[in-house]
Amino acid sequence: MPTARLIYDTPEHDTDLYYAIKMFVPDAFPYLEARGKKIMIMNDLEIDRAKKQASVDEVWSINPFIEAAKKKHKIQTTADVIYEILRKAKVKKVEMPSRTAFTLVDALRKKGITVVSGGNPFYPQRLIKTREEKKIMEKSQRTVFAALKIVEETLRASRAKGGKLYHRGTLLTSDRVRSIIDVFLMERGYVANDTIVACGAHSIDPHDVGSGPLKPNEAIIVDIFPRSLKTRYFGDATRTFCKGKASPALKHMYGVVKKGQELGLKMIKAGVNGKKVHESIVSLFDKEGYPTGEKDGRMQGFFHSTGHGIGLDLHESPTRIGPVDQKMKAGIMVSVEPGLYFKGIGGVRIEDLAYITKRGCEVLAGYPKRLEIK
Amino acid sequence: MPTARLIYDTPEHDTDLYYAIKMFVPDAFPYLEARGKKIMIMNDLEIDRAKKQASVDEVWSINPFIEAAKKKHKIQTTADVIYEILRKAKVKKVEMPSRTAFTLVDALRKKGITVVSGGNPFYPQRLIKTREEKKIMEKSQRTVFAALKIVEETLRASRAKGGKLYHRGTLLTSDRVRSIIDVFLMERGYVANDTIVACGAHSIDPHDVGSGPLKPNEAIIVDIFPRSLKTRYFGDATRTFCKGKASPALKHMYGVVKKGQELGLKMIKAGVNGKKVHESIVSLFDKEGYPTGEKDGRMQGFFHSTGHGIGLDLHESPTRIGPVDQKMKAGIMVSVEPGLYFKGIGGVRIEDLAYITKRGCEVLAGYPKRLEIK
Repeated sequence: MPTARLIYDTPEHDTDLYYAIKMFVPDAFPYLEARGKKIMIMNDLEIDRAKKQASVDEVWSINPFIEAAKKKHKIQTTADVIYEILRKAKVKKVEMPSRTAFTLVDALRKKGITVVSGGNPFYPQRLIKTREEKKIMEKSQRTVFAALKIVEETLRASRAKGGKLYHRGTLLTSDRVRSIIDVFLMERGYVANDTIVACGAHSIDPHDVGSGPLKPNEAIIVDIFPRSLKTRYFGDATRTFCKGKASPALKHMYGVVKKGQELGLKMIKAGVNGKKVHESIVSLFDKEGYPTGEKDGRMQGFFHSTGHGIGLDLHESPTRIGPVDQKMKAGIMVSVEPGLYFKGIGGVRIEDLAYITKRGCEVLAGYPKRLEIK
Repeated sequence: MPTARLIYDTPEHDTDLYYAIKMFVPDAFPYLEARGKKIMIMNDLEIDRAKKQASVDEVWSINPFIEAAKKKHKIQTTADVIYEILRKAKVKKVEMPSRTAFTLVDALRKKGITVVSGGNPFYPQRLIKTREEKKIMEKSQRTVFAALKIVEETLRASRAKGGKLYHRGTLLTSDRVRSIIDVFLMERGYVANDTIVACGAHSIDPHDVGSGPLKPNEAIIVDIFPRSLKTRYFGDATRTFCKGKASPALKHMYGVVKKGQELGLKMIKAGVNGKKVHESIVSLFDKEGYPTGEKDGRMQGFFHSTGHGIGLDLHESPTRIGPVDQKMKAGIMVSVEPGLYFKGIGGVRIEDLAYITKRGCEVLAGYPKRLEIK
């Protein structure tokens, strides 16, 4: 008999729990897998909805367990109630997600329950996307590209004056373009958080979301990673634009990043070590004259990972294409997003999502890679 | 000397961490408070931004700690690296948030570090809102009310045909109104998740977000709780509408819920027990002919709490106005949202936010409470 598994969290926070039950509940509750059954233990407020909506085998009321805990303790803790549930289910040893609160685990152990980590990810099958999931994520990605198109059109229609961009007579700022993107996505049922529209000096810091006026002839990194309100899967893509003529240095660097991304996409397939992919790109950049390291008191070059797993989480661990050994597997969805960041030149990042197969990888949907916008 | 405090998480997940550093970082990192200093330990990607943006005393590079861990372990875990940080800071005992991953705590304990819970909330001062925070939340709440006004106007402009509502010739559904609300909020820099627009049979389940066509002469619960993208504080309000004439039963129940909410707002002040407030409302509903309990196989009546704490979290624990003893304190922000849910009649909930003072409470902004929309 496999070890019982227990999650105590909200499906909003814990995407493993969402993956298991396919339903949202705003407050934490116990979810148990024991003797081949998936069981939700719910309060009065949620029990009817859980019975209707959740993809589980049984929904129990939490009330008898609270009553049982009340008989033993003046003030009942979550652990007291969960202990009664485990007693009823005849469970003495459970696997819980490694991120479970240590105070809850301490309390359960004190009561004689053996708690061990259920591994990371808790459901390894989550990493391997089904055809259906791939289709859903393709849709998310197409929506991201539609938003990128709006940005391109806005930049194309804008005019430079005194070193700043104006659109329909009004100053075009990072915040304004971010709002255009976020509203466009929300109209289509996608929520974006921290959309990056970073120009010039902002663009050389990969996680600076950007602020202030957009300027002509400078790099503008646009990184969009919204979650579908309906399916909860993420899309994620980045393009770098330049309104008007780019400097020869920026133009050259753009070409090198594009080459780096193409190399990554060419190398990625099942069985390949992600570290090798990452190091090949770093070394290509190095050879092309863009070494990575500290310079003038700040990191310059290519100093983030090439990619991360993605799905119900934006960063779906443990998948990462970076400086650590990691074997790629068929069915995993990853971002491929090398970038170069140099003071004086600017930042360039190009990102797509790739579905890993036995023979290589398939890029999700598609969008042109062009720097200059006339 | 106070015990050192340690958080390992992202500020997006852990609002205590955001409260401490006032900056967003997409990946988890160690944050230490030791010898009166607030210290972030960052990777190359984030270190420059942290130095510029975070409200901390020191920003350390994580690299030397990774190097130190590498000398001892072939594969370095997060715990290995954090252990090196604690060694450097001469810390042997730390308080961590109670929700910290148990596997991390297990690993640190194995290395001889004493880990205890830092209490819930980790920063109790977070619950007591400053004037500035109150002002910020008032703005969030005014935006929620502006969205409710759009809903009212949409319902007013809609027409009934064959038992369904139409707006500008097109069927008016829960999803369509939800989208109107969510886009309106996004245009103003607020992200809404799971906005509730629940009509008729959907309205009797307090957490059903609603789906399908909106109908005339039935209860429509609209519950909006967006977070500001800029300040990260939540707003939260609920009104119940009915397009056209409501049934006498629904009308009467609406009046009783309104009375219940007024009673709650009148009772709440510093020093009062939240349980007493909640029970007074339950008992008022009972006297008015709306008892709470299971009926026809489902919970009916008033079967959720009267209110919850709110701020950087939508449900800011441990504050709750419900069936458990809890003394109200001046400066806490709570929702006051009694409701009644009966099969055949429908659901009614009215919610405002209240700022608790020594003498009573102040309702944040304001919006009319009227059921019927002509």
